[in-house]
Amino acid sequence: MNQYTVATLLEETKFQEVQIKGWVRTFRANRFIALNDGSTINNIQCVVDFENTDENTLKRITTGAAVAITGDLVESQGKGQNVELAVTNIEILGDSDPETYPIQPKKHTFEFLRENAHLRTRTNTFSAVMRLRSALSFAIHKYFNENGFYYMHTPIITGSDAEGAGEMFRVSALDPKNPPLTDDGDVNYKEDFFGKETNLTVSGQLEAETYAMSLGKVYTFGPTFRAENSNTSRHLAEFWMIEPEVAFMDLAGNMDLAEDFMKSVITYVLENCQDDLQFLDDRLFNEEKTKPQAERSDMRLIEKLKFVTENNFKRVSYTEAIDILRNSKPNKKKKF
Amino acid sequence: MNQYTVATLLEETKFQEVQIKGWVRTFRANRFIALNDGSTINNIQCVVDFENTDENTLKRITTGAAVAITGDLVESQGKGQNVELAVTNIEILGDSDPETYPIQPKKHTFEFLRENAHLRTRTNTFSAVMRLRSALSFAIHKYFNENGFYYMHTPIITGSDAEGAGEMFRVSALDPKNPPLTDDGDVNYKEDFFGKETNLTVSGQLEAETYAMSLGKVYTFGPTFRAENSNTSRHLAEFWMIEPEVAFMDLAGNMDLAEDFMKSVITYVLENCQDDLQFLDDRLFNEEKTKPQAERSDMRLIEKLKFVTENNFKRVSYTEAIDILRNSKPNKKKKF
Repeated sequence: MNQYTVATLLEETKFQEVQIKGWVRTFRANRFIALNDGSTINNIQCVVDFENTDENTLKRITTGAAVAITGDLVESQGKGQNVELAVTNIEILGDSDPETYPIQPKKHTFEFLRENAHLRTRTNTFSAVMRLRSALSFAIHKYFNENGFYYMHTPIITGSDAEGAGEMFRVSALDPKNPPLTDDGDVNYKEDFFGKETNLTVSGQLEAETYAMSLGKVYTFGPTFRAENSNTSRHLAEFWMIEPEVAFMDLAGNMDLAEDFMKSVITYVLENCQDDLQFLDDRLFNEEKTKPQAERSDMRLIEKLKFVTENNFKRVSYTEAIDILRNSKPNKKKKF
Repeated sequence: MNQYTVATLLEETKFQEVQIKGWVRTFRANRFIALNDGSTINNIQCVVDFENTDENTLKRITTGAAVAITGDLVESQGKGQNVELAVTNIEILGDSDPETYPIQPKKHTFEFLRENAHLRTRTNTFSAVMRLRSALSFAIHKYFNENGFYYMHTPIITGSDAEGAGEMFRVSALDPKNPPLTDDGDVNYKEDFFGKETNLTVSGQLEAETYAMSLGKVYTFGPTFRAENSNTSRHLAEFWMIEPEVAFMDLAGNMDLAEDFMKSVITYVLENCQDDLQFLDDRLFNEEKTKPQAERSDMRLIEKLKFVTENNFKRVSYTEAIDILRNSKPNKKKKF
């Protein structure tokens, strides 16, 4: 018996005796299970022959329950799907108590989901975002690999600052309460793990630059850290950053690289993540419907992404860029 | 005028007026430049018409100098290369003083190169290793992407320990000399950046497990940290780790995955990094020649890699594995 993912099964038309494992999204009319296994935003409909299924088992098919379903893949008579699974056997692998399982088939706020971070990727919004993040990461590596760049892992723990990029987190193995002191009364970092004061990196740039001076074209893509206590949507203490460094490249080449790179990764997700993007596009569109017309976006999400891939980037001077920002709508609202 | 890398030029047979930029490896007989740009371990031979080149320029073509060379790609008369560049113009972009430039065309010890870390990737050994590391990283992402895994970036700064995997580095933004204290005289981490005590992660496993419970198949590939003060060749305080987590998978499936994964990434570098692997294979072979026969490896490097890809992995129990290790040669030498 072959085991499939929902993503692969939905591509097929007919199959005898397949098995699929996943989590119940909904179970309605004692008959229709919407099953998701995370491989795609789409569920597969599993049709239970409830008259010949143990009543106790039927009761345990609740939202969030983990199940193993065996059945035959057939053309669907209902709307919304081409194929469905005619269930021949269902096994409950993990129960989900409807009284306590927090992710129910209804709208949850982000604040509520943040409190249930370990389960939030069971929602469409979060799983779509995480699949997109994964696809974008792959597209980044694919782009650089195809363009002759070498990938470097630069150090996270560092004794250097990079261009004074930001405040740093201290990394230490010293006794935090009674650190060893020098004669001058300063902390004696010579006794710390690395024999010197160390921090979390704010950039892999310094190392990447030295490697570009021998390997030609390199890039980093790894976590970086900023200890500014700035609680805004534009700041994270920990984030992943992409840094390409190229020997013998001038500013024009750098701008061409940035444009080509952006278009390439966006094209990749437009081609490979259609269902997730469409879900987020619809979600945003419906959310904006509640706002006054003037506050809505000019373009829908997918339209915006295509606008980036289908148009040439304009080259502007620093002065022009500052002017554009100063005159921008968000800046006029003092929000930029 | 088109600009090429050494890697792309060496694939061509004839070209008028190409430009190439790189670093001089050697310059001999006032005529032959071995030029490398990091794109491959191979150099391109550039033939200078020294009678018609300014003498001052010729003097500046020293090992390590950065140059821009224009010329015609022609069939090579000499040994060791199929094509060479008949130089029509040479521009010195960056001088390299032979008195002070440390990477000369001779054998350097690893200890010496460690002291010149910013330049050591200009050697064949280090550049080969870094290109291989880059190719292996891409092969890892490619494997998981093609097999339906989603890539996750798990947190580096964490308040959790994972299976007590090792000692941890503390991350803090508190004053190291006079940290705020609680009434009990302990460090008051409520006043620290995240409002609690935080450390560098020893594993992304905890987060990956929760994500596997919704996305099905996920993996992490990122830096992890161990603060054990163990200065051996088997321990690093900071290293990159791969952690796949799969829902609904048993031990047999896990072993199949490990085998398939290992074979896949090794096959990738065997196919894509032949020159670098051959260099390292020869290097190791020559190094082992200096040892007594009994201490040499049974197989050469590439042979070993092919042995892994061409044979099935044996499945053994934990007890059997311990027995094998106990009776192994390194263990008998008390080295394991």
